[in-house]
Amino acid sequence: MTLTGISEAKYGLDEKKDEDIPNLPTGPLDVYRKAASFDWKEMLRFMEGEEILAFKQYVFRTLENDPLFARQAGEDVPVEQKRELTFRRCKQLFRYNFLSQDEMMQSPWKVTVLNDCLGMYDWSLGAKFFLNKGMFGGTVANSGSQRHHRFVQDIEHMKTFGCFSLTELSHGSNTRAMRTTANYDPSTQEFVINTPDFEAAKFWVGNLGKTATHSVVFAQLYTPDGVCYGLHSFVVQVRDPKTLLAMPGVMVGDMGKKLGQNGLDNGFAIFHNVRIPRENLLNRTGDVTPDGRYVTPFKDPNKRFGASLGALSGGRVSITRMAVVNLKLAMTVAVRFSATRRQFGPREDEEIPVLEYQLQQWRLIPYLAAVYALDFFSKSFFSNFVEFQIGLFMKDSSDRQAELGREIHAMSCSSKPLGSWTAQRGIQECREACGGHGYLAMNRLGDFRDDNDPNCTYEGDNNVLLQQTSNYLLSLLQHKQQGKGRIQSPLETVNFLDDWNRILESRFRAASVDDCMNSAVPLAAYKWLVCFLLGESQRKLTQQKALGLGDFEARNNSQVYYCRSLAIAYIEHTVLQRFHDLTEDAETPAGVRPVLKRLCALYGLWTLTNHMAVLYQGGYFSGKEPADFIQNAILTLCGQLKDDAVALVDVIAPPDFIVNSPIGKADGELYKNLWATVMQGKNVLERPSWWAEFCSDKPKVGSLRAKL
Amino acid sequence: MTLTGISEAKYGLDEKKDEDIPNLPTGPLDVYRKAASFDWKEMLRFMEGEEILAFKQYVFRTLENDPLFARQAGEDVPVEQKRELTFRRCKQLFRYNFLSQDEMMQSPWKVTVLNDCLGMYDWSLGAKFFLNKGMFGGTVANSGSQRHHRFVQDIEHMKTFGCFSLTELSHGSNTRAMRTTANYDPSTQEFVINTPDFEAAKFWVGNLGKTATHSVVFAQLYTPDGVCYGLHSFVVQVRDPKTLLAMPGVMVGDMGKKLGQNGLDNGFAIFHNVRIPRENLLNRTGDVTPDGRYVTPFKDPNKRFGASLGALSGGRVSITRMAVVNLKLAMTVAVRFSATRRQFGPREDEEIPVLEYQLQQWRLIPYLAAVYALDFFSKSFFSNFVEFQIGLFMKDSSDRQAELGREIHAMSCSSKPLGSWTAQRGIQECREACGGHGYLAMNRLGDFRDDNDPNCTYEGDNNVLLQQTSNYLLSLLQHKQQGKGRIQSPLETVNFLDDWNRILESRFRAASVDDCMNSAVPLAAYKWLVCFLLGESQRKLTQQKALGLGDFEARNNSQVYYCRSLAIAYIEHTVLQRFHDLTEDAETPAGVRPVLKRLCALYGLWTLTNHMAVLYQGGYFSGKEPADFIQNAILTLCGQLKDDAVALVDVIAPPDFIVNSPIGKADGELYKNLWATVMQGKNVLERPSWWAEFCSDKPKVGSLRAKL
Repeated sequence: MTLTGISEAKYGLDEKKDEDIPNLPTGPLDVYRKAASFDWKEMLRFMEGEEILAFKQYVFRTLENDPLFARQAGEDVPVEQKRELTFRRCKQLFRYNFLSQDEMMQSPWKVTVLNDCLGMYDWSLGAKFFLNKGMFGGTVANSGSQRHHRFVQDIEHMKTFGCFSLTELSHGSNTRAMRTTANYDPSTQEFVINTPDFEAAKFWVGNLGKTATHSVVFAQLYTPDGVCYGLHSFVVQVRDPKTLLAMPGVMVGDMGKKLGQNGLDNGFAIFHNVRIPRENLLNRTGDVTPDGRYVTPFKDPNKRFGASLGALSGGRVSITRMAVVNLKLAMTVAVRFSATRRQFGPREDEEIPVLEYQLQQWRLIPYLAAVYALDFFSKSFFSNFVEFQIGLFMKDSSDRQAELGREIHAMSCSSKPLGSWTAQRGIQECREACGGHGYLAMNRLGDFRDDNDPNCTYEGDNNVLLQQTSNYLLSLLQHKQQGKGRIQSPLETVNFLDDWNRILESRFRAASVDDCMNSAVPLAAYKWLVCFLLGESQRKLTQQKALGLGDFEARNNSQVYYCRSLAIAYIEHTVLQRFHDLTEDAETPAGVRPVLKRLCALYGLWTLTNHMAVLYQGGYFSGKEPADFIQNAILTLCGQLKDDAVALVDVIAPPDFIVNSPIGKADGELYKNLWATVMQGKNVLERPSWWAEFCSDKPKVGSLRAKL
Repeated sequence: MTLTGISEAKYGLDEKKDEDIPNLPTGPLDVYRKAASFDWKEMLRFMEGEEILAFKQYVFRTLENDPLFARQAGEDVPVEQKRELTFRRCKQLFRYNFLSQDEMMQSPWKVTVLNDCLGMYDWSLGAKFFLNKGMFGGTVANSGSQRHHRFVQDIEHMKTFGCFSLTELSHGSNTRAMRTTANYDPSTQEFVINTPDFEAAKFWVGNLGKTATHSVVFAQLYTPDGVCYGLHSFVVQVRDPKTLLAMPGVMVGDMGKKLGQNGLDNGFAIFHNVRIPRENLLNRTGDVTPDGRYVTPFKDPNKRFGASLGALSGGRVSITRMAVVNLKLAMTVAVRFSATRRQFGPREDEEIPVLEYQLQQWRLIPYLAAVYALDFFSKSFFSNFVEFQIGLFMKDSSDRQAELGREIHAMSCSSKPLGSWTAQRGIQECREACGGHGYLAMNRLGDFRDDNDPNCTYEGDNNVLLQQTSNYLLSLLQHKQQGKGRIQSPLETVNFLDDWNRILESRFRAASVDDCMNSAVPLAAYKWLVCFLLGESQRKLTQQKALGLGDFEARNNSQVYYCRSLAIAYIEHTVLQRFHDLTEDAETPAGVRPVLKRLCALYGLWTLTNHMAVLYQGGYFSGKEPADFIQNAILTLCGQLKDDAVALVDVIAPPDFIVNSPIGKADGELYKNLWATVMQGKNVLERPSWWAEFCSDKPKVGSLRAKL
């Protein structure tokens, strides 16, 4: 089993390989590095494994050595130029071919690792590369058949370039409501693609702005008898690969500047009687015969729709991971800054690093714990997803495979929100924790925040997605209540719910702060919390229906404080459970276990504080002690982890070239690096070209003033 | 009394003036506008008053009619060009001279209103204008004497351009630790300004990057005998106004790109033996005689230092307001979007506006309530500050004036954090609530967020500032406990604390959801909360000292969960109390009172939910009901306010030209406006200039691949 870093790591703890990991430069961070309770190289090897580590180092080194990838921190690159640069770098990735098709099949985890590496460098690049290969190529391969093989081959050599067009100007979340049409014309055996009006323009499509020549386009399929068979996907050529000019009938263009990821050219398209061969329908879930009859292996159109969107489910698994990667970058900058920035001190003549302040620790270290918790989670979740994918590939029609699909859907619909929001808030905290210097573009916290932001939105708006998770949990409860058997699932994330009644009777039992400094305490609290919120959500739904509301309204009115909180608590419990299990695992090296245990306890207690009111409300907590204990335990753990923070960041930090932040460099020479970068700025010491605007043409005060 | 809009408003409710406020265009927003429970023009007149309203309209119209202020939503303007444009627009403001010196003195509130207007257009412009006039001009006027008058005169006509240099590369919060030196040389009667090393370079100085010719520079003053008299301010010429070239000995330049506000040229300066006349010392708090003796009216150097920084205290009052303005812009966009964006519905064929979803209401409407609460607060607080300023100006040495200063300091050190964080979180929620379209630069939510962000940092990091507030409250409690008299203050924000014991015995009493829909309920809870946190903070501090910690450590270890929460609860209580009083005020028009009461109750209950765990922890809440009631009341209020949301936004929204967001326009034509703006993009339909990069020079896959 070499799918994930975790399992590989178990074979990769060979101590003599120490020299494979380069030492970090000495400097002001040494004090903290020496105080660390663990060996950062041991942790790194445990988390990544030798093979992945070598692969990452190779990718990073390759980018650093190629002048095409050179960049200057804080430089002001126009959007047009960013798009060009990203395209050229993307082309270079074809030449490097970091992972062959075979290697990807052999170790799917490496695809994620490559995406991590490219994303750490610049998410636009990773997105551009994988939207072509994964979203276009993958969808064509998974949703099409043998006859579509050439479309996949053509993108492999960049003969063509692909994108994926689902969302429209006026529809995103409600995918079924897309209005692009594909009418079959048997006289020419073609589909005719049309955009009814500009509100149905395909919109937000990555790669479509400047470079895509071909797109998977989702459209409502109509047979000649005027019957609509729902949304299907088609390969449509949008530009001529010889000229990059739009094809006749296609109006295609660039949406313009975004808050971030501006190297990626998101675009729109309007189709006016665009004719494509019948064979361009991706026909895995349904096809049209030459004479215009619709045929499908699926009887239930809902199932067909679900299957045709199935290709999307991996996106949320990836985004969960991408968000963690963003938080890693931000934590690297903020922790190294905090360990070297000194401000105030016990005596007038001695200032201490801001990391020594309890407040700063409390602002940052829980997010560092979250990085570790979510990193382990995203790895193990990926491995679950690969298992599911293999089942799909093998056409496994067992109940277990179906159940696994439902469970993974429920997990990904909540892990994406949890990951993206944790990163969003964490990066913002890092920005503020670095004070003014965090607001300087060259230090990159703005990039991390802006590039992470769409993770909250694409592949499903976070708040909308969470409903999928709560629906799943509610259906399980109902199932049990109807006497249809115990609650259990292939990945066991819900099995504890079967013990519902007993868990709801449990109460907080820790008798001291020390008692709380164990992840078993928040874990038990989470079990109660999920059970409680599940019961409350069901009660709320029932109550709403009793008021005469339909299913749609009843669900809408049960989200806030109920279903939404339930979904979040469920996934936090799952993440915590897996981290907890890892710290208990005999194969986890003894050298890193203590620090992992502290991180795990901190993560659990800290996320639990968001639910403290509910814990009191439902009677799991009572009196002053539980909250007091937990708060004190959090502060104690932050204090204990403070000396490990720099080493914990060394483990997750990519090389300086990748982080590209003067205040976040491994040598800790905060001011030297910052000053040097400022001095390298364009025209930094020159007077502005428009100096005469100041020196002559002085304004006559009030000369343009009107009478009110 | 015409200092604030509130007091003016009382004279401004003349119904016949209806035509002074232009009607809004009809369109898709009409449904909501017609459903509103109040007349938006009545609310607008109540909030602003006729005179302010006319002034705002005049400023907005002037900017809109001047081609120099024209702009395109979403355009990609290079940083260099932004700085030039902002300078040229700033120069034009001299010509418009919207407020003469006399008008500013007569109605200080108008200065804030002008800043609101300029900031809504572009904060860089407002900042550039007021850093010159207020920070440089104001500081010279307040900290200097008659001999400095010419420096103020010169900036009035833009003969010179000013800035304010306090922070250094390695010091921000710890202002006393600045290391720039000013040595007095009696032989030439000059001060010699020096930067000991680059870590002491003046850094982050607005206007210094490109345009400032003169700066107020804070430096450690040394007399010829080598004695240091601490930080003083000096006027130092940094550039030649005839050429904008740096003066000899001054290295001055631009810091580069920031996350936002890129029209403002923040800069740095290093001084090498820069000689300035003795008279350039701003000598209100201390002076050096020609022969080199230090003389001061202050005996206590701490008091002198406090007074010399006194000129800064207004900054936080302004920032509180600026943050609200940012949130107004974001709410305008998000509410109008939510009222016109339809997604899903009870039936397949009918989609409903996303504003109809309880979840969307709960995400946005509490922030709309916060806008109203903080808008009223910032106005009344400004009026308090003007009273204090008049006292300073009149050299009022009464105890009341001193107490007023302390109270305003405590308020501003917490209102700035509350305002800036509320705006930060609210804008982010708006960004996410607008889905993908919120991520498009042209819709401006990114600008609002980025431009608001420094409000969390400058004029004191939020977390650091909050300590000032809790210190104030703790000292009051100690004062009382030492039998030195009752707790009271000029603005009465702390008077309830005198009733400490009784309040701590109070308990939550509401018996139903209906009971809770009154701002008196959260107000009573806040009184208990502040008292409880005050007691707990004192207990924590005492406990830390009993462990043998010094004052510095004891305070640091009492911030999280204690002093920090105390300061936040105190200012939330103050804001809520003032809003509550306004809704009870007989002069508040009956037509707007019901909606204001709902907003007030919602704001109070919603912010209170952040403290729910503490309310249980301390026994103010017990059992399930309190939290249930409050949560239900919040959702009920959101539902009641849902039909008022568009009208409430119409009141706070500036004209479309100012908001400059296609999805936030007053006509509600979401998609038409968005599509039209996309189509106006640069080269939107053209193939990229680098098309040949795709069409020829195809990559050979793997040609650069190395053996691992």
